[in-house]
Amino acid sequence: MRVVDLIRRKRDSGELTREEIAQLIAAYTKGEIPDYQMSAWLMAVVIRGMTHQETAALTEAMLRSGRVLDFSGLPGWKVDKHSTGGVGDKTSLVIAPIVAAGGLKVPMISGRGLGHTGGTLDKLESIPGFNVNLSLADFRRVLQTCGCALIGQTAEIAPADKKIYALRDVTGTVESPAQICASIMSKKLAEGINALVLDVKTGSGAFMKNIEDAANLAELLVETGKRMGKKVVALLTDMNQPLGRKVGSAMEVVESIDVLGGGGPADLRELCLELAAWMFYLGERVKTVDEGKKLSADLIASGQARVKFREIVGLQGGDVGVVDDPHRLAHARRTLDVTSSVDGFLASTECEQLGTACMVLGGGREKKDDTIDPAVGLEFHKRIGDPVERGEPLCTLHYNTEGKLEEARRLVETAYKIEREKPKTIPPLIHRVIGA
Amino acid sequence: MRVVDLIRRKRDSGELTREEIAQLIAAYTKGEIPDYQMSAWLMAVVIRGMTHQETAALTEAMLRSGRVLDFSGLPGWKVDKHSTGGVGDKTSLVIAPIVAAGGLKVPMISGRGLGHTGGTLDKLESIPGFNVNLSLADFRRVLQTCGCALIGQTAEIAPADKKIYALRDVTGTVESPAQICASIMSKKLAEGINALVLDVKTGSGAFMKNIEDAANLAELLVETGKRMGKKVVALLTDMNQPLGRKVGSAMEVVESIDVLGGGGPADLRELCLELAAWMFYLGERVKTVDEGKKLSADLIASGQARVKFREIVGLQGGDVGVVDDPHRLAHARRTLDVTSSVDGFLASTECEQLGTACMVLGGGREKKDDTIDPAVGLEFHKRIGDPVERGEPLCTLHYNTEGKLEEARRLVETAYKIEREKPKTIPPLIHRVIGA
Repeated sequence: MRVVDLIRRKRDSGELTREEIAQLIAAYTKGEIPDYQMSAWLMAVVIRGMTHQETAALTEAMLRSGRVLDFSGLPGWKVDKHSTGGVGDKTSLVIAPIVAAGGLKVPMISGRGLGHTGGTLDKLESIPGFNVNLSLADFRRVLQTCGCALIGQTAEIAPADKKIYALRDVTGTVESPAQICASIMSKKLAEGINALVLDVKTGSGAFMKNIEDAANLAELLVETGKRMGKKVVALLTDMNQPLGRKVGSAMEVVESIDVLGGGGPADLRELCLELAAWMFYLGERVKTVDEGKKLSADLIASGQARVKFREIVGLQGGDVGVVDDPHRLAHARRTLDVTSSVDGFLASTECEQLGTACMVLGGGREKKDDTIDPAVGLEFHKRIGDPVERGEPLCTLHYNTEGKLEEARRLVETAYKIEREKPKTIPPLIHRVIGA
Repeated sequence: MRVVDLIRRKRDSGELTREEIAQLIAAYTKGEIPDYQMSAWLMAVVIRGMTHQETAALTEAMLRSGRVLDFSGLPGWKVDKHSTGGVGDKTSLVIAPIVAAGGLKVPMISGRGLGHTGGTLDKLESIPGFNVNLSLADFRRVLQTCGCALIGQTAEIAPADKKIYALRDVTGTVESPAQICASIMSKKLAEGINALVLDVKTGSGAFMKNIEDAANLAELLVETGKRMGKKVVALLTDMNQPLGRKVGSAMEVVESIDVLGGGGPADLRELCLELAAWMFYLGERVKTVDEGKKLSADLIASGQARVKFREIVGLQGGDVGVVDDPHRLAHARRTLDVTSSVDGFLASTECEQLGTACMVLGGGREKKDDTIDPAVGLEFHKRIGDPVERGEPLCTLHYNTEGKLEEARRLVETAYKIEREKPKTIPPLIHRVIGA
């Protein structure tokens, strides 16, 4: 294999074999191929694309670059959910305990927030003592004990992805569906799961603003997962406005506990029930998705899901008291309302701006190593289609320092589009299910 | 300037400003931008292309990365010729003395052979003692004394080109017309010339096999040169068969001296007269190209061109005796004829294979640091359209070692296509003149 020949072939829209992709990724991970050759190849991939076969080969090569967990010794189906990221998306915190309470195993490896999006790990860490950095042995132990464990990416899992992502980030080669797919799927398939439910977000707060781009990615993810022998389904869900009413680490934990307790905002509850239902369905716990939805609702109503969440928190070193009294979580010292200057209806939101506003308040990260303030966040009072009166609060900013308050306020203020007429269409929560 | 933004813009088919390109090239040359970012940008450039304005900006940036010679203190026009490379192309050795003998200044910075193509420097160095590594001060002195000097690339000239070319070579990003143009023109414009005649080769022995690709490159070179305030013209010339009868360093010097002496093969002589004529015309030494051709022929007939060549050889430390007795040059110990196995007419040649055969005999370089044997080479007995009898020699291999003789013989044998009928069209020597 001459690397330059592989680069030239992709440059000229040619296809690489499974073997060639495997060698390329293995050699790069071992440091045998310099960054400058890899980045030229990555740029050719971004512009020329990859076939489904190449994408599967890339995913497999990245998966095999590290350790692949094997939970076949544990009884029952292992299922997981992955979201492509959005604003206010705290479904993992709700779903994982529901599905574990329903008898499936959920070995969940999550990420941190970056830019306008939040991350499950940050939210969990707002619970005092909660340890997301379990060793793989402890991960297995917690999973075995309570049916679910939630940890962060470890160095043993798909190291090729980590190395390649760092290079993509600085060479303008992030925007490749094949690379995005391989990056997501290599890490998820390393979890040793049998089935995966994907939540692919689309809209103004998602990475994929355009629904067709999102659908294409969803299809690619499903196709790749199936080629790797997994049961996979993707829900194409709306991110034209935040999910739920709250954004910010601790505030999102509070809202998740609300849903586990039978309350919480309708949209968040509904999406959690749908996602959990698909996990039960793929994991053969139920015969239909509707049955899965009913099971999920029952597990909430009976309190079992909430008890499971408390069990997970306890096993991972967290303060279980917060499950009963969420106000023990950190909260910001001050609030500021952003109000409407006109009468009308909420027509749309620049949802990414709302996520960015939370980041600006200190609740998110601009760069990977930034630290975050778990207490700050945003509380939303209106959803698209809601009537709005002049002077009525649209959003409440929860903040600790004045430093960037004005910047955050301006971002929020300009994110809301109020119109005189009620909007004719309101975005559905779920646009499409792909791969069912 | 954020480099990743410039990479992304080019990736998305956008245009970079003159300022942005200048900063990018300057920062890369200084080592402030890592290779992996540059190679991603180069790949985007290869695939997305550059506008004429961007190409001119790139050329200018590479030119300004090093020293730009200034011969404005020397009287008269400074003109040069550049060829994109081929097999048997020794026109520089003939043209430089003709044009200098005609009163113009020819400050010529040449290259070495690589792969199937030869290089002027290698040919000159087959003359015992000839020094192509003059300092820039000596270059100026020789130019001032005799109107012409022939040297190799120095570290002071367009260092950005050297650094970028090395990266392009290993990242599959050589094939960019904009980069090829900038690489050629930045070095040529650094010579401090007023006018440039380009010999853009096309055909089976050229880098651009396809005539339209060659024409596009020629137009880009001319356009870029004109934007930089130079008089430029490009001759699109044929490389479907070797130029002249001989390939190999010393053998080509012999043939060049033949032409300077009024003899030599018709095709080589004709192309030299044409190229020199255009140099005289651009350099305002004559009013028409025809007049320039007549002047060139006269300078050969009167012996002035040959005397000028001897003067150059002497001033650059070479053995002037070879000009009178070319057989003092190195020659191979053995010869082998490759004969025709059929009767017919020479229909075409795989000209690149003939150049490669010379390389295989030791007369060229596979890699940049290979050393070459100046004595070996090929002598061609037939041109396209010539009748061929069974058993008649097509080509004579001049060799010193048997090592790769068989490989070279096979390359030559399979390079000749003999057909029963005389070919209907014979490639013209000059396809087109661009920019006149």
